[in-house]
Amino acid sequence: MAQGAAQQRQSSGGVLRTIHYGIGPIGAEIARVAAAREGVEIVGAVDIDPAKVGRDLGDVVGLGRALGVTITDKAQDLFAATPADVVLHTTGSYLAQVRPQLEEIVDAGLNVVSTCEELAYPRAQHPDIADELDRRCRQRGVTVLGTGVNPGFVMDTLALVLSGACQDVTAVRCQRVVDASSRRQPLQKKIGSGLTREEFQQLVDARQVRHVGLYESVAMIADALGWRLDRVEETTAPMIAEEFIKTDYFEVPPGRVTGVDQVGRGLVGGREVITLSLQMYLGAREPRDAIQIEGTPNVDLVLRGGTHGDRATTALVVNAARRVVEAPPGIITMKDLPPATWFK
Amino acid sequence: MAQGAAQQRQSSGGVLRTIHYGIGPIGAEIARVAAAREGVEIVGAVDIDPAKVGRDLGDVVGLGRALGVTITDKAQDLFAATPADVVLHTTGSYLAQVRPQLEEIVDAGLNVVSTCEELAYPRAQHPDIADELDRRCRQRGVTVLGTGVNPGFVMDTLALVLSGACQDVTAVRCQRVVDASSRRQPLQKKIGSGLTREEFQQLVDARQVRHVGLYESVAMIADALGWRLDRVEETTAPMIAEEFIKTDYFEVPPGRVTGVDQVGRGLVGGREVITLSLQMYLGAREPRDAIQIEGTPNVDLVLRGGTHGDRATTALVVNAARRVVEAPPGIITMKDLPPATWFK
Repeated sequence: MAQGAAQQRQSSGGVLRTIHYGIGPIGAEIARVAAAREGVEIVGAVDIDPAKVGRDLGDVVGLGRALGVTITDKAQDLFAATPADVVLHTTGSYLAQVRPQLEEIVDAGLNVVSTCEELAYPRAQHPDIADELDRRCRQRGVTVLGTGVNPGFVMDTLALVLSGACQDVTAVRCQRVVDASSRRQPLQKKIGSGLTREEFQQLVDARQVRHVGLYESVAMIADALGWRLDRVEETTAPMIAEEFIKTDYFEVPPGRVTGVDQVGRGLVGGREVITLSLQMYLGAREPRDAIQIEGTPNVDLVLRGGTHGDRATTALVVNAARRVVEAPPGIITMKDLPPATWFK
Repeated sequence: MAQGAAQQRQSSGGVLRTIHYGIGPIGAEIARVAAAREGVEIVGAVDIDPAKVGRDLGDVVGLGRALGVTITDKAQDLFAATPADVVLHTTGSYLAQVRPQLEEIVDAGLNVVSTCEELAYPRAQHPDIADELDRRCRQRGVTVLGTGVNPGFVMDTLALVLSGACQDVTAVRCQRVVDASSRRQPLQKKIGSGLTREEFQQLVDARQVRHVGLYESVAMIADALGWRLDRVEETTAPMIAEEFIKTDYFEVPPGRVTGVDQVGRGLVGGREVITLSLQMYLGAREPRDAIQIEGTPNVDLVLRGGTHGDRATTALVVNAARRVVEAPPGIITMKDLPPATWFK
């Protein structure tokens, strides 16, 4: 099993040495954010794309300068040869799919921050994988965190932080309204832009039009607040164009799909105590994140303009990395991590 | 030195045993909040007021039922005789004043959550007291936290949590606009209600009209974000009545003072990187808490209606108590504590 060099942990307060695993759009943005930080030193990069392997990370992510880090497709060799503190991992949304990668990283003695949506609260849907990964983490003395804007921040962590100012909490409602018009083509496609209602429904049934993570956020909130949910529901409906909409990638006539209206619900005894509503569509009006806590006192929060998904996710991964390196071994989630504050 | 019984720490996940030190308006509300929690067992109460000593805590705080806890003025005897996890402490704003009490609690082997404003970030103004208290905490294996709505939450912790979603941060601005009309008489008095401009200025000069805590919040933000401030400024101006204002306690004619407009500023090289503005006055329009982070992306948060100071402070003390009992020994501040989420 590859290890050794990787286990030379950083000294406290020192520079964070990062390996970047997955150099897609999000991984590339994380690399650009990390490269701009005084407190971060990029020491390695992994991707399986033959068009990227062998090239300098700085060139591939459009940094305009070389970083002296060559992208490799041989992760184990890299881990064995490269002292590092944490792997920033961005290769997939589903825990079962990325599990072998995560186990390889952990077995190499490296901490992980991943954008894998299901890892944001892995016990929600995969308690067995979570238990095994947690066991390996403790064995190797490393920590694994899944984070991102959602799940990981606006619809769970931020609501839980706010609950701290409440004497009593009876319900948590979050709304996220995202205008997908200016987002990446894959995201516009993923939300069903341009489809008919029927095509949209087929993809929903095949779980191909679906934001991953509402289930995880519902579970994180419920566990943190001590609510035993009887039921978690998730529904996905299309948003429909009322007028002609054109983006850089799609033209959507009236009556066609512009995006998704996805709702996650947590129920206790028939009462809906958690409602997470995610509307992500082309031309969304008044994009925003909102959180209402029903309790004493009520909390009524608005993030005006919303939180840009890619900007915030990539920031959270880098900002949380420092906290993860400091954290005790095991799987940790954002609800138990000290604030992942920005650093230089 | 009193100790022994107090050191029988709770089992993980068990009920939190609290001692309430200071049964003024805030301490009384904390006791009511704690009494309503399944996860909290009130085991002791301390106050020096002869009108309260010897009476049942439940009666004194207006719970409408006895709690079986008699208020005592002999703190050391109570600590020695009563197994407990944490002392919820509400006797003063200034660290130098409450220091002997805090040291007595720590020396008795008990954790502390205190509303002492200067304790929210004690190294800001009292590094020597902080060092000594931290040393005692580590010696006794206990943790001390200062928290509250402000300092402790809306103008520091919440801003820092939001910074986690930023790739870059260049400035932090917080505004808190509080309508004092419906608050307690001592608070309305403290902000100078009904005074002339001259009387107000005299009290400002004597530091008697002053919200304590802006300096601590500025320092907490700067330290967390790695900004070395060249200068911290604090200014206090009066808010002036434009029309006649009447509350349950004060009548303020036009031209007289309705409250304070207090601003804390942190500067780096002449640039104001932190601005914390607290307007607390009778008849404030659009009460709210707002946070703007200038960076990538910008963050624009509003808590509509604001955050009720007493409700939130008392909630935060009880909610943070669980985290403090779990935390490593020493002085801890909200920026390094996992979210103090509400619990039943």
